[in-house]
Amino acid sequence: MPKQVDHRARRTQIADALFRVAAEQGLEAVSLRHVAAAAEVSTGMVQHYFRTKDEMMAFAMAVVQERQQARITERMARLGADPGPRPMLRTLLTGVLPLDDESRAYGRVALAFLAYTAVRAEAAAPLREQTRELLGFVAGLVRSGGAAKDPDAAAAGLLAAMEGLGVYLLGGHFTPEVALRALDAHLDMIFDPA
Amino acid sequence: MPKQVDHRARRTQIADALFRVAAEQGLEAVSLRHVAAAAEVSTGMVQHYFRTKDEMMAFAMAVVQERQQARITERMARLGADPGPRPMLRTLLTGVLPLDDESRAYGRVALAFLAYTAVRAEAAAPLREQTRELLGFVAGLVRSGGAAKDPDAAAAGLLAAMEGLGVYLLGGHFTPEVALRALDAHLDMIFDPA
Repeated sequence: MPKQVDHRARRTQIADALFRVAAEQGLEAVSLRHVAAAAEVSTGMVQHYFRTKDEMMAFAMAVVQERQQARITERMARLGADPGPRPMLRTLLTGVLPLDDESRAYGRVALAFLAYTAVRAEAAAPLREQTRELLGFVAGLVRSGGAAKDPDAAAAGLLAAMEGLGVYLLGGHFTPEVALRALDAHLDMIFDPA
Repeated sequence: MPKQVDHRARRTQIADALFRVAAEQGLEAVSLRHVAAAAEVSTGMVQHYFRTKDEMMAFAMAVVQERQQARITERMARLGADPGPRPMLRTLLTGVLPLDDESRAYGRVALAFLAYTAVRAEAAAPLREQTRELLGFVAGLVRSGGAAKDPDAAAAGLLAAMEGLGVYLLGGHFTPEVALRALDAHLDMIFDPA
């Protein structure tokens, strides 16, 4: 099905252009014309592949999330067989945090997308689904650690802390050192309560 | 100094208009013309009071933050004399969380502003200063609770969790019940470790 493959490749090319524009100039700079110029295609071409800005943004987020997940899965695989819940969780959470250029670019776009969806409830559905899945995975690891009184609540708090640390890192409120120290203290409280 | 008072009042009127536009339609809808229309003044008037969009946004954030602080200070005062660090902290954190219409509107704008400043480092300075002050206050309360191994790191993690819970509440990822349960589990870990 070469037609299908082309379609996906072209959509991904446009999504990458949107991502670059958003990471460098913010989501408010994302317009049909701007994205078309960055992707080096016509505005008609962009409109052919995406009917609305919401659709284009949702697809762009899905593409970068897939890449981020692949990166984190690879890091987790490098931990070797049965590393235990805490190292797995730390690898996952630090993989999401904006600590290098690639994840910082991702984080800036994700934050802008979160802000965008906060005033457009219908656009938030894919993000909600993703949080739900991530929360289930994190809760499983917290539960298997065995020390948390309320593993679901501890998992929700840990995920929220990761999200907030990301926001503070992106805004330069926290240094990477402060963020990692806070994350490790949080993991200590969950896995090794005094 | 009636001239000074007028100046402040007019700036606040414009900031309120910006806030309404941003809360309802997102920060990307904030334009000179849009804000002027919402404030029922001319675009020339807006330009007279604010030279740049950054300046206008920073002032609007400062105005709503002052109001939010006043609201939280009032709630804390209602706790009575010497309520102890945990109830004070819970009142502070739940006061910031977007759990009612007023704080949801504030949260939406704050999130948009965070996303905006993530690609404009210079506009983030007032927010960083605010986080630094808040972190110092929270760390003092955590320290006086006496149970945290690393009070500064625990305070940073708690503040990050509050920020992340806010993001998840605004996006409808977490219900208020889930967010409050996560917050209380987090406070348990800090003040009553098993």
